Amino acid sequence: MWGFELRREIEVPLKRQIYLAIKEQIVAGKLRAGEALPSTRQLAEELKISRNTVNEAFDMLLAEGFVVSRQGAPTRIAEGVAVHTEKKEVARQREEQPLPLLADFRTGQPELRRFPNYLWQQISIKAFREMSNDMLGYTGPQGLPSLRFEISSWLYRSKGLVVDPLDIFITAGATHALSVIAHLLYRQDQAIIVEDPTNIEMLQSFINKGYQVKRVPVDEFGLLTDKLPRISGPVYVTPSHQFPLGGILPADRRAALIRFARENDSYIVEDDYDSEFRYDGDPVSPLYAMDPDRVIYIGTFSKVLFPALRIGYVILPHCHQERWRYLRTHTDVQNPPFEQAALAEFLRTRKFDRHIRSMRKLYRERRQALLTALKASFGDRWRLWGDAAGLHLAVEFEDMQFDPSFKDMCRSNRIRITPVEYHAIAKGLHANKLLFGYGHLEPQQIEDGLAVLKAFLIARGYMSSARLAPLK
Amino acid sequence: MWGFELRREIEVPLKRQIYLAIKEQIVAGKLRAGEALPSTRQLAEELKISRNTVNEAFDMLLAEGFVVSRQGAPTRIAEGVAVHTEKKEVARQREEQPLPLLADFRTGQPELRRFPNYLWQQISIKAFREMSNDMLGYTGPQGLPSLRFEISSWLYRSKGLVVDPLDIFITAGATHALSVIAHLLYRQDQAIIVEDPTNIEMLQSFINKGYQVKRVPVDEFGLLTDKLPRISGPVYVTPSHQFPLGGILPADRRAALIRFARENDSYIVEDDYDSEFRYDGDPVSPLYAMDPDRVIYIGTFSKVLFPALRIGYVILPHCHQERWRYLRTHTDVQNPPFEQAALAEFLRTRKFDRHIRSMRKLYRERRQALLTALKASFGDRWRLWGDAAGLHLAVEFEDMQFDPSFKDMCRSNRIRITPVEYHAIAKGLHANKLLFGYGHLEPQQIEDGLAVLKAFLIARGYMSSARLAPLK
Repeated sequence: MWGFELRREIEVPLKRQIYLAIKEQIVAGKLRAGEALPSTRQLAEELKISRNTVNEAFDMLLAEGFVVSRQGAPTRIAEGVAVHTEKKEVARQREEQPLPLLADFRTGQPELRRFPNYLWQQISIKAFREMSNDMLGYTGPQGLPSLRFEISSWLYRSKGLVVDPLDIFITAGATHALSVIAHLLYRQDQAIIVEDPTNIEMLQSFINKGYQVKRVPVDEFGLLTDKLPRISGPVYVTPSHQFPLGGILPADRRAALIRFARENDSYIVEDDYDSEFRYDGDPVSPLYAMDPDRVIYIGTFSKVLFPALRIGYVILPHCHQERWRYLRTHTDVQNPPFEQAALAEFLRTRKFDRHIRSMRKLYRERRQALLTALKASFGDRWRLWGDAAGLHLAVEFEDMQFDPSFKDMCRSNRIRITPVEYHAIAKGLHANKLLFGYGHLEPQQIEDGLAVLKAFLIARGYMSSARLAPLK
Repeated sequence: MWGFELRREIEVPLKRQIYLAIKEQIVAGKLRAGEALPSTRQLAEELKISRNTVNEAFDMLLAEGFVVSRQGAPTRIAEGVAVHTEKKEVARQREEQPLPLLADFRTGQPELRRFPNYLWQQISIKAFREMSNDMLGYTGPQGLPSLRFEISSWLYRSKGLVVDPLDIFITAGATHALSVIAHLLYRQDQAIIVEDPTNIEMLQSFINKGYQVKRVPVDEFGLLTDKLPRISGPVYVTPSHQFPLGGILPADRRAALIRFARENDSYIVEDDYDSEFRYDGDPVSPLYAMDPDRVIYIGTFSKVLFPALRIGYVILPHCHQERWRYLRTHTDVQNPPFEQAALAEFLRTRKFDRHIRSMRKLYRERRQALLTALKASFGDRWRLWGDAAGLHLAVEFEDMQFDPSFKDMCRSNRIRITPVEYHAIAKGLHANKLLFGYGHLEPQQIEDGLAVLKAFLIARGYMSSARLAPLK
C-alpha cells in the first residue's frame, strides 16, 4: 500500500528508511496535505517490524514538520510542504583515463620521483607524534611559529636576508598568496601593472578581483621600467627569473621599480617562484632586500619540494599584516598544522638544503640534455632566452610562428607544450617562442619528446622535412 | 676600509657576505655611481681570503647589474642603482601569553581531548605509506576520489542522502566553502539574504565579496519565510540547527524556501555545521534532499573531528561545477592529499561513525550538566531556545540586557562568552540572550565557569546579589 520496501541488508536504519520513504512521497506531492497516515500499529504490522521503529520514524516527520498530530486523532500530512521535485538527469562525462602523452614539456613541474619520500615520511611521523593536542584546534592564520622561524633562518643562510619571523605569513602556496594579496591591495578601479608576457594563470587572481590590467613589455632581462605607466597601482614581477622568458632584472631597473612604488605610494609584489635553482652561480638576491617596506615577497615550496604540500609564504610590510590576518580568517582560516610541522623539521635538520643541492645538480644536467637535444633536432635555427635557472627554457625559433591555439592542437596530439603567446597579454610579439619544461623529464624522455615534437612540426608544415637531414 | 667584517661562524657563505656588504653600500648610496671597487686581489688580501671567493662575489654583483666591468679597467659602481633605503623600525607587540581564562563558553569548539589521536595517527601513517608518488603532484581541485566516495557513502548511511561522488567537492572547511560560494554566485549589486541573527563571521565572506545584506528575522524554529524580501539573490541558511538560536526549520518553510529559489532563479546555501549532534532523535534531513538543483550543501569535519584538519565539502548543482573548479584552481589550487587520504580511511573503516556516536553521548551529558548548572545559578529566570542539538545553547534571561560590547568586557575579565547581539544584524532584538558553548568543557569546568560568570554579572550590576541565595 505505501509503495516502499524496507531493506535490511543496507546500513540505513529501518526507522530512517520509513521516514525517508514517507517524506519523499509528501515532498513529491503524492501524499496530499490533510491526508491521514495509517496508525503506527497498522504500519508496523504491515512492514513486520516493531511499533517502536515506526514511532521513531513518525517522530522524525513530526519534529521536522512534515506531519501534524493531535491527541487522539490520526497523524496527518502538513500544509504547504510539497515542492514536486524531480531531479534532472545530467549527462555526465565520467572521468576518462586520457591516453599517455608522447611528449610532456609542461612548465613548473618538479621531479617527484627523486623526492626523498621515505625521509619525509619519517619526519612527518615524528612531527605528528610530537604534536600537542592543542594543535588539533585553531592555531591561527599566520602559521606555526616554528615554521616561520625556520623559514627566516633559511632565508638568512641561503640569501643573507634578515627577516623577522613575525613578518612571515604561511600560505597554501604561491597562487593562494596571490589571491589574498589581490584582495589586500585592492582599491576601486585599481590596475595591476604586470610584465608582458607574464604567468597568465597567476594573473587570474587579480582579474577575478576586478583589477584592470596594465601591461609593461619585457626584454631579455625582464621588465622595461622606463615603460612603466604613469598610474598608481601594485606591480606584479618575477625579478629573479622572469616568467616565462627567464631574465634577471638588472640592479638599475630594480632601483627604478622601488622608486616607482615610493613615488606612487604603491607596492611591488615579488614572485620568487624558482630562484633556488640557478645553475651559473648563486641564487639572485630578492628585490625585497632593497626595500622591505615596499615589497611583498612570495616564496613557495611547491617547486622545491612538491606541489601537493600546499605551503608557501609571504613576507609582508607591517601595515598590511592585520588586514592579512582578517582576510585569511574569513577565507580559508589557516593551513593544516601537520605539513607545517613536518616542513619545519625538514628545514631545521637541513634536509631541505641537501635536497635543493641534489635537485640543482639534477636539473642542471637535464637542462644540458635539453640544450644538446635541441641542437640535434633544430641545428642552430633557434636561440635561448634568459638566465640558466629554473625548470624550463624559453626558446626562440628563427622561422616558426606559434599562436595560442598551438597549445590545444598539440594537446590533442598527445604533446604538452606551451607557446609564449599563451602567456602574452598583447598578442603577436612573442609568436616565435616555445617554453620547454624539463625538470620532470629524464634525458631519454627529453630526447624522445623532441623527436615527437619535431615530427609533428614537420607534419603540420611548421618546418620543412629538409631539416630532418642531420646538421653537424 | 670597506667597513665590513666577515664572519666565519655563520652559515652564510663568505662570497655572499662580501656580495651583500658591497651591495648594501651601493643600494644605500654610500658607494656612488662610477666609483671603482678595489681589485679582487687587493680585497682578497685585505680580508685574508682566497681571490676566488672575491671573484665569485664580484660575479654576483655583475650578474645583477650592481657593478659594470670593462676589460682591463677596474670594476665600477653602476648608474642609478641607489635607493637610500632605511628600514623603518616598527614598534612590535611580541606575542604575549594571555592569562588563562576563568570561564570559556566560546561556541563551535569541539572536545579535542577525546579525539582518538593515536588511532588517527595510525591511519594517517597507513594512508601516507600507501600513497603513490603521483599524489605529490597536483591532484586536482575537486579532491581525492576515494574521499568523495566515502563521504557519499557516509551521507547515505547516516542521512539516507543519495549523492553522486562527482557532485561532491572537497573544501578547506566551511568558511572556505562559503568564500568560494560567495564568488561563485556573485552578480553585480547582488544581495545575500540571511537569517538574523546569523553567524556574523561567516557572513564576512559575502560582505568582502561586495554583496548587500538583506536580513530576514528568525523565530524559535528558524527563518521566517513569509518575511523573505521580494528580490532575487542567494539565501544563506542553517535549517538543521539555526545558528545561533537553535531552531529546526519546519517542513512548510523548507518548501517555501525551495519555491523562493525556483521562482527567483536563485540558490539556497545550506550550512549543515553541526547536525551530527542531535540528542533527542536522529539527525535532521538536509534541505538539500528536497531539491538538489537549487541547494548548495556545505558540510564540514571541523566540528565532528577537529578544526585543524581543514577539510569540509560542498555538494554542488551541476551548473556550478565547472566554474567552481576554475575558482579553486585560481585561488588555493587544492587541499593537500594526506589529510584527505587519512579521512577517507577513517570513514571507510567506520571509525568515524564510532567517534560520532561516542561524542554524541559525551556532548549530551555535558549539555545536561550545563542545564543543571544554569538552574542552580539562575533559578528559573531564564529559558532555553532551540532544539537539543549541537555544541552550544542559546539562553534568554528574564531581566538582563547584553549589548555587543558585553563580549569584550567579559574577555578583559578573562571570561569568554558571546551575546546573541554580537551575531545580530538589526541590533536590539536579542539583547537578553547569551550563547553558552559547552562541547569542550568538563562538567566541573561548566559549573566553575557559571559561578565566575554569575559573580561577574552581580559585580557589574546585571543582576542583584539577592539571587545569590540558593533557589531550590
